[in-house]
Amino acid sequence: MAKQNAFYAQSGGVTAVINATACGLIQAARHAGITVYAGRNGIIGALNEELIDTSKESDEDIALLRYTPSGAFGSCRYKLKSLEENRAEYDRLMEVFKAHNIGYFFYNGGGDSQDTAHKISQLSHKLGYPLTCIGIPKTVDNDLAFTDNCPGFGSVAKYVAVSIREAGFDVASMAATSTKVFVMEVMGRHAGWIAAAGGLAANNDGEAPHIILFPEVIFEQEKFLKKVDDCVKKYGYCAIVVSEGLRNKEGKFLSEAGTKDAFGHTQLGGVAPLIAKLIKDELGYKYHWAVADYLQRAARHIASKTDVDQAYALGKKAIELALQGKKDVMLTIDRTSTKPYDWTIGTAPLEKVANIEKKMPTDFITTDGFGITNKCREYLEPLIQGEDYPTYSNGLPNYVTLKNVPVKQIIGGKATG
Amino acid sequence: MAKQNAFYAQSGGVTAVINATACGLIQAARHAGITVYAGRNGIIGALNEELIDTSKESDEDIALLRYTPSGAFGSCRYKLKSLEENRAEYDRLMEVFKAHNIGYFFYNGGGDSQDTAHKISQLSHKLGYPLTCIGIPKTVDNDLAFTDNCPGFGSVAKYVAVSIREAGFDVASMAATSTKVFVMEVMGRHAGWIAAAGGLAANNDGEAPHIILFPEVIFEQEKFLKKVDDCVKKYGYCAIVVSEGLRNKEGKFLSEAGTKDAFGHTQLGGVAPLIAKLIKDELGYKYHWAVADYLQRAARHIASKTDVDQAYALGKKAIELALQGKKDVMLTIDRTSTKPYDWTIGTAPLEKVANIEKKMPTDFITTDGFGITNKCREYLEPLIQGEDYPTYSNGLPNYVTLKNVPVKQIIGGKATG
Repeated sequence: MAKQNAFYAQSGGVTAVINATACGLIQAARHAGITVYAGRNGIIGALNEELIDTSKESDEDIALLRYTPSGAFGSCRYKLKSLEENRAEYDRLMEVFKAHNIGYFFYNGGGDSQDTAHKISQLSHKLGYPLTCIGIPKTVDNDLAFTDNCPGFGSVAKYVAVSIREAGFDVASMAATSTKVFVMEVMGRHAGWIAAAGGLAANNDGEAPHIILFPEVIFEQEKFLKKVDDCVKKYGYCAIVVSEGLRNKEGKFLSEAGTKDAFGHTQLGGVAPLIAKLIKDELGYKYHWAVADYLQRAARHIASKTDVDQAYALGKKAIELALQGKKDVMLTIDRTSTKPYDWTIGTAPLEKVANIEKKMPTDFITTDGFGITNKCREYLEPLIQGEDYPTYSNGLPNYVTLKNVPVKQIIGGKATG
Repeated sequence: MAKQNAFYAQSGGVTAVINATACGLIQAARHAGITVYAGRNGIIGALNEELIDTSKESDEDIALLRYTPSGAFGSCRYKLKSLEENRAEYDRLMEVFKAHNIGYFFYNGGGDSQDTAHKISQLSHKLGYPLTCIGIPKTVDNDLAFTDNCPGFGSVAKYVAVSIREAGFDVASMAATSTKVFVMEVMGRHAGWIAAAGGLAANNDGEAPHIILFPEVIFEQEKFLKKVDDCVKKYGYCAIVVSEGLRNKEGKFLSEAGTKDAFGHTQLGGVAPLIAKLIKDELGYKYHWAVADYLQRAARHIASKTDVDQAYALGKKAIELALQGKKDVMLTIDRTSTKPYDWTIGTAPLEKVANIEKKMPTDFITTDGFGITNKCREYLEPLIQGEDYPTYSNGLPNYVTLKNVPVKQIIGGKATG
């Protein structure tokens, strides 16, 4: 029997290292003589029979994926409904997979994606066309259960820690006659993992960041302002990391609970400017603020080597395990030692992983609610270790844009969009 | 006669490489047996007789300055008034310099600083205590005359170009089902040099950034929206770099001309969110936006090697020229060849440099007002060449905080503050 093909798709918000996973997976598949078809724009590519033939890419370009941020085949924010709600969608997927002799289904994403992988696996068994389904974790939010950490997070963590250290040095220089407060907004709508990573920049008393505002800790204005004022009086300046998910007592995001503009529109997003202006209004300190947004998750130029290595290894392992007959699992990163840091790749049953969100432990936040504990630092520190620079031409990183040659359609028609 | 001491101060907004200049200057001074006293927080340190004895720092720490962003001795936003308006201030400076046997005055800053250096030089001659005054350029704004480019700019330029390339890759991945427009705000209130640098990221048709909004080009809403819409329809997404200095027809900054919040306060700064929301309201595209702020000018981790080399060389040359008796000049970077790029250090008379602002040439902006010309690219490209990474410990860059040991006061009292 001829070898079956593999389907690989990227899902949800992209990261600095999801392409490193694609790189590991495609290289291992090539080694094993398996062709990988990638979904154009994630699972939508399968629904629309828009498959990309990765065998048309050169070895050099596939190798460059390891150093290229973003999703090389396109990602999507598209969650399949339940089997009961939209059976037709699942049937369509099966039809496409059968038509293209797909025997392996690799889905590279967050919690929703693991859920989808689980459903597809179940259905494929029911329909007598059993797919080998393996989920590969990816999310800067670091909120997947069973895995010690999530690929993509370590690089955001490093970017945030490096950036607040650098901006902290800057504002310290300016504080005597000018800017005394700097506020940097970072991602993490539901959990403070990314904000916490900013805390790694401060090794000694007085170093930036002086305050971290977590989504886990309700924002208390008076307490916060006192902390800022104390900090400026003690150290001359104050550097703050704020999570986009910061909430008020009513449980509303500060970025949304706030003011409306002259047209009655909700205040244009960004909690950093709100916090900065509050400080100016109440304490009078000159401020600057930054919102890193996509820059933080796309910053392959300062990616964590640990993160890149793990992302790559997961892709490679996915192929190896699939060929060994392993299925219905999400791969996990298992920490085997913290000092010295060591890790291995494990698995967790897809049915258990789906839709569980891992919160940051309470004892990772200091009792005053503005910093990280040593326990948190011990967890985070290994994840930002090492640099893994891309090569540069003409002063800019060499990121690859693949040819993305389509696989000839057999069924045709569109299921979405 | 015993060797005289040197005074060195950093002025205005700091950069990723102003400490590289300090490094070159102090190392050259040590080599020549001259002690460098640095002004704590710039010229204010001289006025208040708060001098820092750099001879107390180890060679290792001084060497690390080359890799450390920000101003190691503190900077200030403080412009000396004219001699007529505040003669007392100048007299105080002379008194402090005499008391500490200062024979050399090095001022590292932008246009205002060169003006100050010029005035101090004039006065010192009048008072019969002639100082050797040399100005060393520094500004991310790249707006000093006579020098081909300004130290600090090349590294911001590199950061901006790298960042928009990375964010462009990210939004391209997401565009099928989610974010279609990304807006990144960069510095440059009066000139578009930094915004222009974003254009270096696009080498081929369709690459990010697709649109640059310059302070030199009045914002025309309809024309802009059409360009965005065309871009999304043609390439699937649109990546935009906008200068904080973007203005409307009335000449007002868009970030200030806009809306007020519910309390009647002016809209919290940031032109990026304004532009992003305009696109959402008028075209319906989902957006993300980032404001890099201090992150861009402090980003030593991705500094341009060309920029670092030039900053360092200027510091070294300042000492060498001073010892040769050169005075009353600002050092300049002279481009001797573009392909291959080559440069040397020249000088311009301080009296000519002071307070002249170098605008971006009109023929650096494309006729539609949204991009850079090849001429602009040829000018900018050499300035972002090369990487010059700091070393890392524990996943974070090794930036040095000096001991900053004060020189014993002789006069005492405070002139400011």
